[in-house]
Amino acid sequence: MKLVIVGGVAGGASAAARARRLSEQAEIVLFERGPDVSFANCGLPYHIGGVIPHRDKLLVTSPDRLRERFRLIVRTRSEVEAIHRATKTVRVRDLASGRVYEESYDKLLLAPGAAPIRPAIPGADLPHVFTLRSLADTDRIKQAVDAGVRQAVIVGAGFIGIELAENFVHRGIATTILDRNEQVLAPFDAEMTTPLVAAMRAKGVEVLLGQSAEAIAPHPEGMEVTLTSGTRRIAQIVIFGVGVRPDNKLAVEAQLEIGPRGGIRVNEYLQTSDPDIYAVGDAIETTDFVLGEPTQIPLAGPANRQGRIAAENALGRKTKYRGTQGTAILGFFNTTAAMTGLSEKTLKRLGKPYRKVYVHPTHHASYYPGAEAMTLKVIFDPHTGQLLGAQGIGGAGVDKRIDVLAVAIQARQTVFDLEEMELCYAPQFGSAKDPINMAGFVAGGLLRGDHPQTDWETLREQTDAFLLDVRTREEFASGHVPGAVNIPVDELRARLGELPKDRLILPYCQVGQRGYIATRILLQSGFQAANLSGGYKTYRLFTATHDAK
Amino acid sequence: MKLVIVGGVAGGASAAARARRLSEQAEIVLFERGPDVSFANCGLPYHIGGVIPHRDKLLVTSPDRLRERFRLIVRTRSEVEAIHRATKTVRVRDLASGRVYEESYDKLLLAPGAAPIRPAIPGADLPHVFTLRSLADTDRIKQAVDAGVRQAVIVGAGFIGIELAENFVHRGIATTILDRNEQVLAPFDAEMTTPLVAAMRAKGVEVLLGQSAEAIAPHPEGMEVTLTSGTRRIAQIVIFGVGVRPDNKLAVEAQLEIGPRGGIRVNEYLQTSDPDIYAVGDAIETTDFVLGEPTQIPLAGPANRQGRIAAENALGRKTKYRGTQGTAILGFFNTTAAMTGLSEKTLKRLGKPYRKVYVHPTHHASYYPGAEAMTLKVIFDPHTGQLLGAQGIGGAGVDKRIDVLAVAIQARQTVFDLEEMELCYAPQFGSAKDPINMAGFVAGGLLRGDHPQTDWETLREQTDAFLLDVRTREEFASGHVPGAVNIPVDELRARLGELPKDRLILPYCQVGQRGYIATRILLQSGFQAANLSGGYKTYRLFTATHDAK
Repeated sequence: MKLVIVGGVAGGASAAARARRLSEQAEIVLFERGPDVSFANCGLPYHIGGVIPHRDKLLVTSPDRLRERFRLIVRTRSEVEAIHRATKTVRVRDLASGRVYEESYDKLLLAPGAAPIRPAIPGADLPHVFTLRSLADTDRIKQAVDAGVRQAVIVGAGFIGIELAENFVHRGIATTILDRNEQVLAPFDAEMTTPLVAAMRAKGVEVLLGQSAEAIAPHPEGMEVTLTSGTRRIAQIVIFGVGVRPDNKLAVEAQLEIGPRGGIRVNEYLQTSDPDIYAVGDAIETTDFVLGEPTQIPLAGPANRQGRIAAENALGRKTKYRGTQGTAILGFFNTTAAMTGLSEKTLKRLGKPYRKVYVHPTHHASYYPGAEAMTLKVIFDPHTGQLLGAQGIGGAGVDKRIDVLAVAIQARQTVFDLEEMELCYAPQFGSAKDPINMAGFVAGGLLRGDHPQTDWETLREQTDAFLLDVRTREEFASGHVPGAVNIPVDELRARLGELPKDRLILPYCQVGQRGYIATRILLQSGFQAANLSGGYKTYRLFTATHDAK
Repeated sequence: MKLVIVGGVAGGASAAARARRLSEQAEIVLFERGPDVSFANCGLPYHIGGVIPHRDKLLVTSPDRLRERFRLIVRTRSEVEAIHRATKTVRVRDLASGRVYEESYDKLLLAPGAAPIRPAIPGADLPHVFTLRSLADTDRIKQAVDAGVRQAVIVGAGFIGIELAENFVHRGIATTILDRNEQVLAPFDAEMTTPLVAAMRAKGVEVLLGQSAEAIAPHPEGMEVTLTSGTRRIAQIVIFGVGVRPDNKLAVEAQLEIGPRGGIRVNEYLQTSDPDIYAVGDAIETTDFVLGEPTQIPLAGPANRQGRIAAENALGRKTKYRGTQGTAILGFFNTTAAMTGLSEKTLKRLGKPYRKVYVHPTHHASYYPGAEAMTLKVIFDPHTGQLLGAQGIGGAGVDKRIDVLAVAIQARQTVFDLEEMELCYAPQFGSAKDPINMAGFVAGGLLRGDHPQTDWETLREQTDAFLLDVRTREEFASGHVPGAVNIPVDELRARLGELPKDRLILPYCQVGQRGYIATRILLQSGFQAANLSGGYKTYRLFTATHDAK
């Protein structure tokens, strides 16, 4: 049995190691076009910023280590140029010597990854215009930065772009980041990203939304970037972080099935349309775990899992890949944005029914020093309560809550399960009612009908509604929703006479809790009422979205 | 409908607020014998240590707030002395005035909590001998400490005892902590607590195991505590933290059913043997979520949940309590110990079959600065792989992994699900193969038979086995298991001739991974082999247990 693997980073290296553990007898050949195997892709921006000072830290393993420990045949700087399915061989070019040869396989495993997109705009090929994928890219960017960069433009405010922005701040570089969308971090819902934009601006990063780079031209001070809005910025370095494209050339030429967005199509065993060829990682079309439909989600964790599973199947087991949830996280200094499952905008686009709640808890007991704020958004099926997706933005503890929700989604749990979750509580770590429980209470109350809620987006449509601010006079005075009337919740029972019986009353407070109590009081006193989900803090997330444009 | 609630802290206060949200019409009377309602029990040690400097931070809410917001009738310093089930009344003593009166109820909800045990040893009633349960206890201890305490003895190394030890260290007090068990934190398995003992000793706390206090006597320098071992210690303050006893007096006198360990017996609706009386919190016998059998687990999170559920049922709903998992966490400076579900010792005691694995990962990518070590122990059904329990010890990120495992247990997931979990990964937050995935891989490999493993405990029985250390020469030289032979894993294939074909070979490495590779190589080369679970680090956990006595 001879297994040939194309690509030696996350998925490919995982597959090779797994294959060897399963079989001492198999012949395993690993081709990698670059000089390195299994490097830490996700660490690259931090080496540029000096957070990870030693480059060798990024080398998870070496070709020699793979040879010794796993008895692999590792050929770096070797480009697989073609697959000959009829003869079950691949054509390989040794990039050092130029030699071209054929290598046979019994099973072939493709892990070529995805290539960063370089937009076809004038000047995109200037010397200090980069994309970031490999260690070689990292070296080039770091070299440029070390040689002296005062100003940078990053085109694309996705994960890599924002991580690079943090690292440019570490290096003292005045950084402008653009996104053609009206938000940063496109997989997230826009309102959940507004605190991140605020955090970036607070660190001096210029964030320009709804615009992209139109042209880059040489300039006495480096380059001049012209934006679609006509604005211009001077920079000594420009980075494109506008997304990746599956590296499907080999697969296309071998006439393997390809999905509409370019991903190599695989079945649940990660087998391509040729049963002797498997494919994993950023190059494939995978299955959305929640919807069960095809999707394309380039992430390191799934790539590793897929490598493991494809190796098992190539060696004769029958292991299914369950699909990808899209669990992802970004840190920008002390701000964390994380998500799992489907976003609201994806559900809207697909026309799927959903409900959502927002909670704004602290990451541990508020009475213990150092409690940091977060916002959690939980999206669920309006009938069954099954969890569909979740997003978090804030400081410490966001990663924990999204991980908990990721597991709950994997287990097909509901918002009612969130109410019952028994999580770690000591005041340094959480609360007796954890943020997860709180989200469950709010969502469960909504579905049981105890707690009717209105979303901020629909507020504008309810022009006849009576908007009731139940916060204190001080809170009201320091900012409120236009048109709201202020009756603090603790006075509400005594002042019910001031409220209309024939109009829908929409109470709101700061985060939703007092609004909930007010809603319960009103409903039980013969009024129609619905709490404004997530309170004034949620309103501010949305209005800040508009401010941020 | 008149609901009377006895006890106004976690479960009682939650129940009262929930009851009001469900019904504006209900008459809700809350009796609390102390002066405070709903205070932050779990924060008390940190006020003594000055970590939470302001006492009012510990007051989650006030009687006035409960009156205003929830229109509750709140009577503090009111002791409910008797339940008259026939007349559906309780006898109440107003502790301020001494007045005694009867209060009627339609439904009664008992949330009396549990009282700290004060061992009946000579001197237990000396003035500076304390237990810690209430704010008043906190005030007394803090007053004593503020007045000048140089030396303290804490009897009982449970959660409260160890938290107090940390806070005594903050106050510069030389602290001795004792436990009659051969370990600290009795709910945990002993080997998982040895790093905590080391951390306590590193902070200067004297930890004495397998002994308790026999007598306390006045002494010119304060008190002299004589231990069961004969050792004596001088202290100006002594704290008993030896556990709690359900405060079941009212229930016993009212002839409600009581469990064998003193907890008030309730059904899944938290109803006592009298259908008009509910009970919640530390005073009840609850159901173990994993086993479905009665247990007694005093924890704040479950108490809050129970209060909520009992209120719903008292007001006519039918909500089931699912049982308690026993998720608990302790912080001692930067060391975290957390657990959920069943311990190995509980399973052993019950004679239930199980398997276990240990992993020793870092809390985030090791290539990113600041990665902290942890040990996770995962216990599961040997046939189905269903998760039964988990424990973690280490630094940052232990809470997250135990929360993830708590949810997996709640969802009745298996070790195979752990392999597939898609958790947040960026280098500051986790790894592409998260510690949870790693635990899944090790456990899954064991159950699939790919990865035979032996536990350290059974090593002594396998006297005929060949113990093979597959670490580097340097690692071997700096400490190894007596009798082991060293062949580094990368040399193993070339040196198979040195190994016996007729004996079981037990490879081990530092954490288990190279041992696993060695096991795979050996099995496929015609040897009998089983990896020593968790490697040398796990061995050290066990031998450190013995050192610690």
